[in-house]
Amino acid sequence: MAYLNDNYLKLKAGYLFPEIGRRVKTFCDANPDAAKRLIRCGIGDVTEPLPKAVIEAMHRAVDEMGQRATFRGYGPEQGYDWLRTAIAKNDFRVKGIEVADDEIFVSDGSKCDCGNILDIFGHQNKIAISDPVYPVYVDTNVMAGHTGSADESGAYAGVVYLPCTPANGFVPEPPKEKADIIYLCSPNNPTGATATRAQLKAWVDYALANKAIILFDAAYEAYISDPDVPHSIFEIPGARECAIEFRSFSKHGGFTGVRCAFTVVPKSLMASTADGKFMPLHALWSRRTSTKFNGASYPVQRGAEALYSAEGKQQVRELIEHYMANAKVLVEGAKAAGLTIFGGTNAPYIWVQTPAGYTSWQVFDKILAEANVVITPGSGFGSKGEGYFRISAFNSRANAEEVAKRLQALKW
Amino acid sequence: MAYLNDNYLKLKAGYLFPEIGRRVKTFCDANPDAAKRLIRCGIGDVTEPLPKAVIEAMHRAVDEMGQRATFRGYGPEQGYDWLRTAIAKNDFRVKGIEVADDEIFVSDGSKCDCGNILDIFGHQNKIAISDPVYPVYVDTNVMAGHTGSADESGAYAGVVYLPCTPANGFVPEPPKEKADIIYLCSPNNPTGATATRAQLKAWVDYALANKAIILFDAAYEAYISDPDVPHSIFEIPGARECAIEFRSFSKHGGFTGVRCAFTVVPKSLMASTADGKFMPLHALWSRRTSTKFNGASYPVQRGAEALYSAEGKQQVRELIEHYMANAKVLVEGAKAAGLTIFGGTNAPYIWVQTPAGYTSWQVFDKILAEANVVITPGSGFGSKGEGYFRISAFNSRANAEEVAKRLQALKW
Repeated sequence: MAYLNDNYLKLKAGYLFPEIGRRVKTFCDANPDAAKRLIRCGIGDVTEPLPKAVIEAMHRAVDEMGQRATFRGYGPEQGYDWLRTAIAKNDFRVKGIEVADDEIFVSDGSKCDCGNILDIFGHQNKIAISDPVYPVYVDTNVMAGHTGSADESGAYAGVVYLPCTPANGFVPEPPKEKADIIYLCSPNNPTGATATRAQLKAWVDYALANKAIILFDAAYEAYISDPDVPHSIFEIPGARECAIEFRSFSKHGGFTGVRCAFTVVPKSLMASTADGKFMPLHALWSRRTSTKFNGASYPVQRGAEALYSAEGKQQVRELIEHYMANAKVLVEGAKAAGLTIFGGTNAPYIWVQTPAGYTSWQVFDKILAEANVVITPGSGFGSKGEGYFRISAFNSRANAEEVAKRLQALKW
Repeated sequence: MAYLNDNYLKLKAGYLFPEIGRRVKTFCDANPDAAKRLIRCGIGDVTEPLPKAVIEAMHRAVDEMGQRATFRGYGPEQGYDWLRTAIAKNDFRVKGIEVADDEIFVSDGSKCDCGNILDIFGHQNKIAISDPVYPVYVDTNVMAGHTGSADESGAYAGVVYLPCTPANGFVPEPPKEKADIIYLCSPNNPTGATATRAQLKAWVDYALANKAIILFDAAYEAYISDPDVPHSIFEIPGARECAIEFRSFSKHGGFTGVRCAFTVVPKSLMASTADGKFMPLHALWSRRTSTKFNGASYPVQRGAEALYSAEGKQQVRELIEHYMANAKVLVEGAKAAGLTIFGGTNAPYIWVQTPAGYTSWQVFDKILAEANVVITPGSGFGSKGEGYFRISAFNSRANAEEVAKRLQALKW
């Protein structure tokens, strides 16, 4: 008799974004006129076309695939050397951060990487997760059986939640209790908060002292404008002994529909066997990649490589300036509407307190119905996200300006 | 203290194909002249360019990504509707096989799907796997902790191996003992054997009787020429209650470097919770897909869709005729060399008995050194693969003819 994985039954009703999609569809089907003026600031999905350098590189790669002499079949599972080198050099070494080419693992997305990384860890680890945060960290741990059931607020038994609140600037401190695997996300999705060097140092010190491992999600690092904010956990001495970093081309190069990302696993990073022997995780992740993945699409990898050309870098800068100027418009609009806001300066997300008396799903429904704007309810990111909502700056300038205006017209 | 997944330490030295890659590199570095005449018939990787219809569709899709009005960000995690419909209709419904559009889950590769499917099953299942077979089935079960250690032959404790031998035409019968999850692969990689309707019916009957689930890998179905051989497990009545099917565009459309595949999970397929309640697996796989995957690349999905156009179908037919004509050349060459062979008629693989006294890795080394041809040692596919090797027909005609000639020149 075949058994299913009972842990899936602990999961809440739906993954956040499909649930938003369902509510928006129901509203639009019932209100076709309002549907026409709908503006989506919910899911953090880019809206602007791919950089020209990427388009050209992908066309060239597709042409190569049409000729026998230049056709490419299976590539290296961990990514082509030219892309691993471009990443390690441009994102790390030229900035003085030690990362070797073969510590870069190219993938088809950071969501996949954040979930798949659990494959190489034992089930006995105590998991610590920021709250609120990108829901994939919690959900994949639930699915892997690392938690108990959820309580009414949506918090799962067995997880060490790290509350992110206005009091700590939405950057959690290391907990008093021990944790073995810690998820940090900076710039943070959804709050837009960034960890300072001192805050990251405190985490690296905690991890080294406890032989814990930090899973550092830097998907939004390209949006950091403050020169003092670290872009990589590996800027902190000692991090190569206690951290894995996830990066993505989704928000950096506009690759949400193209699919490419990478994970950095230092060769000096060790974890313990059940009987207390320390071994490098690099070999395990490499083996996992060889056995359960076949590399990212060749034309996609060529597109990613083009982001590191001189033209590509300039075009990425323009994309990010566009989205961050939207963020400014939205920040100002939300403030003028009398809302209390956080974030929006080193990340394309504005984190907004719900007006008194409203839950975050109530705000979602009200803004959808009255302003015809889709936002993301904070509670979808964890129980500590209740009382907030997220506005995404991924949009056209005209839409950002229109949303800023509509927010001010709302009566609470 | 962070713990690693100890199950990884049970894995044999390397995943088969990277190990072959390492041996070939060592040989070529030491023998630059021989390296120049090297012909690869090892890894089952296509060599011919992508069909024109695919190239054109991918160019169009890349252009769409360069314009704001047609740009696409995140797609549906389970695949775009137009591709799911094209697949369900062309591969199943027009052939009289019941499969709904939303039972198709589009992915970035069958290797990923075969590995990831274990996520939705409990750890208490007894696993049955053909031997020899595609190594991913065994290795992913080892990594998930479903086995004990390997013995000297490479067989893992706790797995029900289903021997494929000349006596059963390399198609295993249902075992006497109970198994909960059964991996079948037809046309088989590596033996090239195909299961008849009667043989698949015996398996479906076994699965229904035992409430077991068949994981049916049909990655090579496009190579079937015999009209009596089923292309899908869903041609067998009752299979919608006991089977999942994996299909790939890798060998069908030449997508090994492009990356696209799909899994069929019928909504009528149930598995048991730990406390004996039966629930549909479709919802679990859909949830897994939403949480740990973000859809295949948009230009790639457009390329896959083009395989179902009239031109695409004709171009696929030509590709397959090309590779199967190679297979004929290789079959004849191997026979003329006095070798005992199997397969090569409904699959692009020829399964060859090693000459007396040779292990399959010894044959690998000898053919590499003396004929400068890369084959795949049978033992890499399981302990029952010892005594055989696989020749892949994925090559140019000239190379296939040259390999046929070189095989005949070998002295054993």
